[in-house]
Amino acid sequence: MFFFKLINLLIMSSGVTIVGAGVTKFGKRTDVSYRDLMAEAIVEAINSTNGEIEPKDIDGLYVAASQPELLVDQAHVGNLAAQVAGITPNIVSRVEMACASGSAAMRNAWAANKSGLADTILLVGLEKMTHNARVASRGLCLVPDVENEAIHGITAYSGFALAAKMHMKEYGTTREQMSSVAVKNHYNAARNPKAQFHEMGEITLEKAINSKMVSEPFNLFDCSPLTDGASAVIITRSDLAKNYTDQPIQILGSGQSTEPSIGVSNMKSITEWHALKRAAKSAYEMANKTPSDIQVAETHDCFTIAEIIEYEDLGFTPKGQGGKFIEEGESHLDGSLPINTSGGLKAKGHPIGATGLAQITEIVNQLRGNAGKRQVADVNVGLTHNLSGFATHHVIHILGN
Amino acid sequence: MFFFKLINLLIMSSGVTIVGAGVTKFGKRTDVSYRDLMAEAIVEAINSTNGEIEPKDIDGLYVAASQPELLVDQAHVGNLAAQVAGITPNIVSRVEMACASGSAAMRNAWAANKSGLADTILLVGLEKMTHNARVASRGLCLVPDVENEAIHGITAYSGFALAAKMHMKEYGTTREQMSSVAVKNHYNAARNPKAQFHEMGEITLEKAINSKMVSEPFNLFDCSPLTDGASAVIITRSDLAKNYTDQPIQILGSGQSTEPSIGVSNMKSITEWHALKRAAKSAYEMANKTPSDIQVAETHDCFTIAEIIEYEDLGFTPKGQGGKFIEEGESHLDGSLPINTSGGLKAKGHPIGATGLAQITEIVNQLRGNAGKRQVADVNVGLTHNLSGFATHHVIHILGN
Repeated sequence: MFFFKLINLLIMSSGVTIVGAGVTKFGKRTDVSYRDLMAEAIVEAINSTNGEIEPKDIDGLYVAASQPELLVDQAHVGNLAAQVAGITPNIVSRVEMACASGSAAMRNAWAANKSGLADTILLVGLEKMTHNARVASRGLCLVPDVENEAIHGITAYSGFALAAKMHMKEYGTTREQMSSVAVKNHYNAARNPKAQFHEMGEITLEKAINSKMVSEPFNLFDCSPLTDGASAVIITRSDLAKNYTDQPIQILGSGQSTEPSIGVSNMKSITEWHALKRAAKSAYEMANKTPSDIQVAETHDCFTIAEIIEYEDLGFTPKGQGGKFIEEGESHLDGSLPINTSGGLKAKGHPIGATGLAQITEIVNQLRGNAGKRQVADVNVGLTHNLSGFATHHVIHILGN
Repeated sequence: MFFFKLINLLIMSSGVTIVGAGVTKFGKRTDVSYRDLMAEAIVEAINSTNGEIEPKDIDGLYVAASQPELLVDQAHVGNLAAQVAGITPNIVSRVEMACASGSAAMRNAWAANKSGLADTILLVGLEKMTHNARVASRGLCLVPDVENEAIHGITAYSGFALAAKMHMKEYGTTREQMSSVAVKNHYNAARNPKAQFHEMGEITLEKAINSKMVSEPFNLFDCSPLTDGASAVIITRSDLAKNYTDQPIQILGSGQSTEPSIGVSNMKSITEWHALKRAAKSAYEMANKTPSDIQVAETHDCFTIAEIIEYEDLGFTPKGQGGKFIEEGESHLDGSLPINTSGGLKAKGHPIGATGLAQITEIVNQLRGNAGKRQVADVNVGLTHNLSGFATHHVIHILGN
């Protein structure tokens, strides 16, 4: 009994390692069914291991999906994924935290691994949205506080637009700075074949600034699109990782927090995200890193202003200097801290349930040196930031090799 | 650093203890909103602690909800619960595994606690269904394999009816035995003021047998109802439990498994549930218990045949003897192993997301001696079994004091 406990403790003291990660092509994927899209991501993740992983090795399963009931008439997609993968896991859950479902699933998978419930866990995130834009848009309108706020017109679009106007007023952030985020992210997407707007290529600042109005001050190029896509990640105990890959990526830190609010009502500030700062503090502390250690990051640019606020609240630049950070090119692919090298939600696309794990996949690819034309040189530590609601919930992971 | 690791290991070696558990009145709850129902369950759980728990003590949050997007036009209910509870947890997730959402959430919360991500975790499960029976019924039809099976008429009703017919043919299970499950569970509900059919009182075998046909061989009293209701449970590290209760209940074991299938297609048998048996094996092993150690249980009687199959596959009686087990009164309140003392899904009600945590609450009440007129004498070890889909996914917990 004592020996068993000791072994158990040793297992739990092991780290958690990513051994595989992949994404499907993002965009309009009317060529595949929901479950085929799921399978495609799982195959991508397996292909990024050394190929020695067997279904029987996988004893944990997490599915991140936001609104399959509304969009593809299928509930219980955690069980569906067990069928698609052909496995009978010891722990299985579908996790829904709206746009941050993927990262919330990763946090649970991390805990499942550390607790000893499962050694090797498959995570798959996905959403199919483009076949029914009306339902997808309505689904997004159910994410904020419907009863008290959405009913009065506070949706993601108008809510983040409010934050943009406030940030412009408080800190002098400009129209050009916001559009520069879009220009950068389309530049990166042009270098990522999996990105939704890869084929569109680079865009000019003029094109972004002059695109049509969506919700003042946002125009079209301030907003992430509706997207179909899936992503998958495989994690295992660090001591088992060598069985599956020569390029292990460690989960160094993980942090999560919420506002005590699903809407704007109880937020202290809509331009300084305290829940993000709490989540970041946890992740930096667990990883024993500071913002200056981060060499590449995927952050949640659902709207251009979000990326600017995130530069600040993740600690990459002082409060109020986010606009200047993009203007001076710091977050460009050749800047001091490249951000959203994948193209981000803006230009890689934002299939809700897939986003968190797709962010992690991009950082895995960067740390492994597999990021092709968007590869950042000599990176060893990367960060992902995923949010949901009106920036009321945040999850952050720090990865390293 | 070494000292920190050692402390961490000691924390992780601690057990997980339930310090509070409560349910709302189940039934037609058109008197409250979705969030008020959530609050009601949280208050019930807090009231079952010693009253010393503060919002700041709660650093983890899980919400079990099946279809709030369809039924109450609200997504992101994990974040909503943070607002309702007034907390900013370090880990928060909404878990959806259809009818087993509550137990799947508990398994994740257990892992979060053991991994050190959170010390004291609030779980809340709920569903509001009766205000829109059409949408609720349609929602249930999305749980099996919609693309390949539900589309041909395999819903929960017809699917479990198929299992019933097979079980009758293979093992000689009778109409009377199935109805006896309903009679027993209504008898128990008559002793549980929170049960949906409490006010209906006891029913006769004749009434159950002669009720109207739903899906052959099921008639009305073979089926659990649509229900509004919520449940909440608070867990903490065992070494902290004394701060919150004098009646700690230990989570001795936890097990989960799925079929490699969301529908009947890939199940080896529909009358012997192999995923249940795998989950039970894990839970019994973790708890170091055998079926004969269990003194009281809440099992998933979504249909009467399910409870009969569960007697067998949980190991309470040999395969094929489930019908005899109920016929001989073994599972009655005064039998050798009282099952579904709460009234079960059949008569306590089945608000999908609430069910798993409501089962746990009933066992907590039994072990604490708080079960009123349905109290089983001298019980120290109880079990909960929660399933989802066409019995394709199972979660089992073993509790003790």
